[in-house]
Amino acid sequence: MVTIKMIADALSISTSTVSKALNDATDISAELRQTVLEKAVEMGYTTKSSRKKVNRKLAVMIKNMAYGNPKDFGYNIVLGFRQAAMNHDWNVEVIDVTKELMNEEKYDTFLVRRGFSGAFCLGFTLRDPWMQQFQASQMPTVLLDNFVNDNPHVACVGTENTEGMEYAIQHLVGLDHREIAFFCGEKHSRVSQDRLNAYERAMLSQGLPVHRDMILFGDYLAPEVRNHLLPAFARKATAVVCANDIIAANVIDECRRCGLRVPEDVSVIGFDDIPLATITEPPLTTIRQNRKNIGMLAMTVLGELYERVPIALVQIRPQLIVRGSTAKANAAGYQVSVEG
Amino acid sequence: MVTIKMIADALSISTSTVSKALNDATDISAELRQTVLEKAVEMGYTTKSSRKKVNRKLAVMIKNMAYGNPKDFGYNIVLGFRQAAMNHDWNVEVIDVTKELMNEEKYDTFLVRRGFSGAFCLGFTLRDPWMQQFQASQMPTVLLDNFVNDNPHVACVGTENTEGMEYAIQHLVGLDHREIAFFCGEKHSRVSQDRLNAYERAMLSQGLPVHRDMILFGDYLAPEVRNHLLPAFARKATAVVCANDIIAANVIDECRRCGLRVPEDVSVIGFDDIPLATITEPPLTTIRQNRKNIGMLAMTVLGELYERVPIALVQIRPQLIVRGSTAKANAAGYQVSVEG
Repeated sequence: MVTIKMIADALSISTSTVSKALNDATDISAELRQTVLEKAVEMGYTTKSSRKKVNRKLAVMIKNMAYGNPKDFGYNIVLGFRQAAMNHDWNVEVIDVTKELMNEEKYDTFLVRRGFSGAFCLGFTLRDPWMQQFQASQMPTVLLDNFVNDNPHVACVGTENTEGMEYAIQHLVGLDHREIAFFCGEKHSRVSQDRLNAYERAMLSQGLPVHRDMILFGDYLAPEVRNHLLPAFARKATAVVCANDIIAANVIDECRRCGLRVPEDVSVIGFDDIPLATITEPPLTTIRQNRKNIGMLAMTVLGELYERVPIALVQIRPQLIVRGSTAKANAAGYQVSVEG
Repeated sequence: MVTIKMIADALSISTSTVSKALNDATDISAELRQTVLEKAVEMGYTTKSSRKKVNRKLAVMIKNMAYGNPKDFGYNIVLGFRQAAMNHDWNVEVIDVTKELMNEEKYDTFLVRRGFSGAFCLGFTLRDPWMQQFQASQMPTVLLDNFVNDNPHVACVGTENTEGMEYAIQHLVGLDHREIAFFCGEKHSRVSQDRLNAYERAMLSQGLPVHRDMILFGDYLAPEVRNHLLPAFARKATAVVCANDIIAANVIDECRRCGLRVPEDVSVIGFDDIPLATITEPPLTTIRQNRKNIGMLAMTVLGELYERVPIALVQIRPQLIVRGSTAKANAAGYQVSVEG
């Protein structure tokens, strides 16, 4: 076990200075505090409270995701995590992570300084500064839907994408669709890539053709969607499967702008079942990730990482939720009339 | 909660008959017992002891795998499972599963009759009768390395194959190998398929060509291996990555029969790090699955399934173990001389 004395010796400074740095005292310089914290992380130091079963705590680090209200995407995730944590005698603090915080302080030292034994991180994108740091982090960390290679301290929790995509394609095939496009999210995200592979496999296993120009990439901001759907419409796609619900909501808008009706001309399926999926017009058929279960699992996995079981990946079963955005394929075809 | 009375009513028989069937009494017919057990499973009946925290028990069902001795493949898996079970107040019984047992009794009714709340199943192959039954089982079940679709009661535990294969390919590329063959296991097993996909991705990410005739299929019995390696040798493969250690051991034998030296002419890598890997000549470089961790995780996952969290898949980090079966690529080439 790493002691304050060992850190002090390694840096040739006094134990009281190390203690000050670890306890966030104000009478040492920011540079010295950072040096001590980084050495503490490197040596695998854990605070006393995190070694005892009392007062030990975990962080839920949330970036760019609402969670305060039952309608918010993050609400049930945090709830599930808190419930599971309570059962295992962990305290939980939820922290809103900003770009500023990430630029100011390193992920590992932030956790050590605040006395956390590990964290569940949600809503981070590949462009966030801490995403790089997760790859070398020595703190037990569970990421939602973001996979990090080779790091035994970091695990990913998400949904079984292959099965989810099979449900979507089977549902559409049951409605006589054959020309099914896929609108992928960010090209370089692991989840998008997994869902794309899953789409291709599901199409092939149904004996349906996979055309390159039916696979659409792009950011999910509406202006981007606009131009991306035209190749699929040119091929008379009667359905669009989307890598997430936000893309799907934008696809519905874009269909409308092109003079196409959802679901009469084009069926649209999302992925995630975020609260937005119930208020689109029509409401979205989608593949549900059970968010409360994901939260509970994240806590379980964090507990295992804390016990040095190097979990890489945990996936839960998805569920097909049928709403109004899918219907029988339109055999008559359609005319596209691009607006504005 | 389903009671004995409800089962009796559903079958229009007495509660004492139901009780006899559930308690394995001898004074009712085998057919009637089976009918009662199947109805009990269908209705989701759980025994009293499995509802209380005392005396509740889980089964480790082992088919075709030694586990009694520390050198056996199953030893550490069972050990890890037992340790984790003890921490969560579960009793564990280990059961050797034979073809006869599987043909005699259904998986679910076996568990209910014996008072088990769930099971961890190891060593089953696609040809085993219970494998079909896992797809519809209503008992919490964790399978090692066997994936079952769509069933929220059944989860798979295994190793992150993509990462493992990347370690293998990177290791070989570091030794100047470029013509790297892959010897797959059973074509229709999910694990073989995953490891094959992982091989292809790892090759492409290293900028190496994937040739169809460098991907070899087949059972891992030695006589089968014999004919399969020749296409790879014709292409002057300098390394063979194998989907498991048993295949790798046979590949080493086959290389010798063809007059090739391992590792001087051909490097060989396995997957799993079973005890056999240390006693081949030369000892096998391989990708380790940490078996004790897998056992611990299996218990954790079973606990989650028992709480109705529908986990599909859990994977742990693999580890590259370098032994004597890999070395610098032989730039001079080789001559194959098939023996006997």
